[in-house]
Amino acid sequence: MPELRKDPVMGRWVIIAADRGKRPTDFHQSSEGKGVDPKSCPFCPGNEEQTPPETLAYRPEDSRPNTPGWKIRVVPNKFPALDSEGGLSREGIGIYDRMNGTGVHEVIIETPHHQETLSSISEKQLEEVLWSFRDRILDLKKDKRFKFILIFKNHGEKAGATVKHTHSQLIALPVVPRNIAAEIHGAREYYEYKERCIYCDMVRQELSTKDRLIAQNEHFVCITPYAPRFPFEFSILPKTHGSFFENSQKHEFESLAQILKDMLMRQDQVLHRPPFNFILYTSPSNQSHSHDLYYHWHLQVMPRLTHVAGFERGTGLYINPTPPEEAAEQLRQAEHSIRKSP
Amino acid sequence: MPELRKDPVMGRWVIIAADRGKRPTDFHQSSEGKGVDPKSCPFCPGNEEQTPPETLAYRPEDSRPNTPGWKIRVVPNKFPALDSEGGLSREGIGIYDRMNGTGVHEVIIETPHHQETLSSISEKQLEEVLWSFRDRILDLKKDKRFKFILIFKNHGEKAGATVKHTHSQLIALPVVPRNIAAEIHGAREYYEYKERCIYCDMVRQELSTKDRLIAQNEHFVCITPYAPRFPFEFSILPKTHGSFFENSQKHEFESLAQILKDMLMRQDQVLHRPPFNFILYTSPSNQSHSHDLYYHWHLQVMPRLTHVAGFERGTGLYINPTPPEEAAEQLRQAEHSIRKSP
Repeated sequence: MPELRKDPVMGRWVIIAADRGKRPTDFHQSSEGKGVDPKSCPFCPGNEEQTPPETLAYRPEDSRPNTPGWKIRVVPNKFPALDSEGGLSREGIGIYDRMNGTGVHEVIIETPHHQETLSSISEKQLEEVLWSFRDRILDLKKDKRFKFILIFKNHGEKAGATVKHTHSQLIALPVVPRNIAAEIHGAREYYEYKERCIYCDMVRQELSTKDRLIAQNEHFVCITPYAPRFPFEFSILPKTHGSFFENSQKHEFESLAQILKDMLMRQDQVLHRPPFNFILYTSPSNQSHSHDLYYHWHLQVMPRLTHVAGFERGTGLYINPTPPEEAAEQLRQAEHSIRKSP
Repeated sequence: MPELRKDPVMGRWVIIAADRGKRPTDFHQSSEGKGVDPKSCPFCPGNEEQTPPETLAYRPEDSRPNTPGWKIRVVPNKFPALDSEGGLSREGIGIYDRMNGTGVHEVIIETPHHQETLSSISEKQLEEVLWSFRDRILDLKKDKRFKFILIFKNHGEKAGATVKHTHSQLIALPVVPRNIAAEIHGAREYYEYKERCIYCDMVRQELSTKDRLIAQNEHFVCITPYAPRFPFEFSILPKTHGSFFENSQKHEFESLAQILKDMLMRQDQVLHRPPFNFILYTSPSNQSHSHDLYYHWHLQVMPRLTHVAGFERGTGLYINPTPPEEAAEQLRQAEHSIRKSP
């Protein structure tokens, strides 16, 4: 059973997941090539029995679960970091604190087609991916054990992907992770001082100065952050205040699919199809008080271009060699060739 | 001129160092092989003119600066992340905050011998390395612009090293990095509640349970942390409370060199000479109030065995597949063969 342990000094939770454990000699084995052949790929149609039974699939009404025909398929992770069974037993061990590693870990298979990527699938299919995120979040929010539901993607081995067939992941957690808690804390402090949402202020300033503005459409804006940790990192934020991604409406999902597809193509063009991660930041669920007024959901995309060295790991202070204004400029310039392509 | 920018929501500082900047196509070039040949190695004796003039060297009294003969040599980083000239001008830009990237970035060349590593140099030479850390910290603490002096090491390309010849780095900063500030905050809260140093309590508990104890000598203890982010991460702490590494005495440096050498050899043996980082955590200097009572300096060593995936990058919540008790057991077992070796 995995467990959650708390660093006694920093208060940071860590998941100790020995079931995913490796012997020292395993660590440097490359996972490149795993599932390269569609015949052996666990995420390809026809191989449904290689994954645990699906928790959600978009498929024709007349097709049976766990058989081909699906457009999107969500399954439990075969090597979960957390265990969906069991309660939230907490205990102290001397000065230390631990709790059961209770949670959900799922995989969202974004397309049945083995060779596609998130940037190559159609805008319509990308919208279906976003709907599947929403459906799973709404379902898991009913489980009162979980405080935060995280959707993220590792694309490419350097970004942490171990299966090539394009997919995202979902982890439902009994704690709010450190960085999300820090964002909420910062946003609340700003709101208490200014009585405005800090993200709304950021959107307004970025739309006005345009220094870090890459793209916008009816409902969304895409910017490089003012103080990004990583080169060419970018964020997509809704123009209208909203705390919960999963409460978005149909026209917003259409608009989000459009700008996300556009941005992933720009990223591929400027950075030559880099490995990347994305993270969906939505408001924690099941909180004693609501963050509606000041938390503003957003999507963060981070191409994996640099090694994170000892300095960054230890201190949390990052050195970024690319000013976000330069990154924004290059990503903006990619626009025309994308617009011209069919 | 590099600059420091603050993330408006999380309050996290980032160094934007465009002078170290790269074009998109530069990012994936491997630095492997750089300085592999001693003849072209900027850190080898005879090539002193390839670095900026030394700020410190341990060398015979009759040898001239920036010539061969040294045992340890400290030089400014040729591609510094921060600029040592200039003041600490701070300004607001709308909702954002920035300051000049004022700081010092130095390289500590740990041995004149190109083929050595930190684990292969003699205990005596390792002690000299520790003395050079101390000397540079004490010198830079006189400069009141700096709030924190960080000593760290990237060993191996995967850990962020760009020059092969073994070296550590020093960065003097006008801000206290996020993780150090969080440690100090946590340690102070514990002290206010318990009136004891949390690290002293940890040392006591680890020496008593021995679950995560790897090694100890007269003045130091080496443990795997209760909630480590990375597999086989370990920490060396002084048994007696002390906030400042740089205030250690001669017998303590001897003792530290002994346990560090022992640990690096264990690490090499168990993990097959892995890439690794270490970070020296000492109390910030030039603070309005002192952290003497509750901050406890320590050294953290993190072998680089796993990719940090999107989940970790985004949330700050880490999944560690190796329980620290298992890691401690393996590192403990390495003891006998080391003791037997000459």
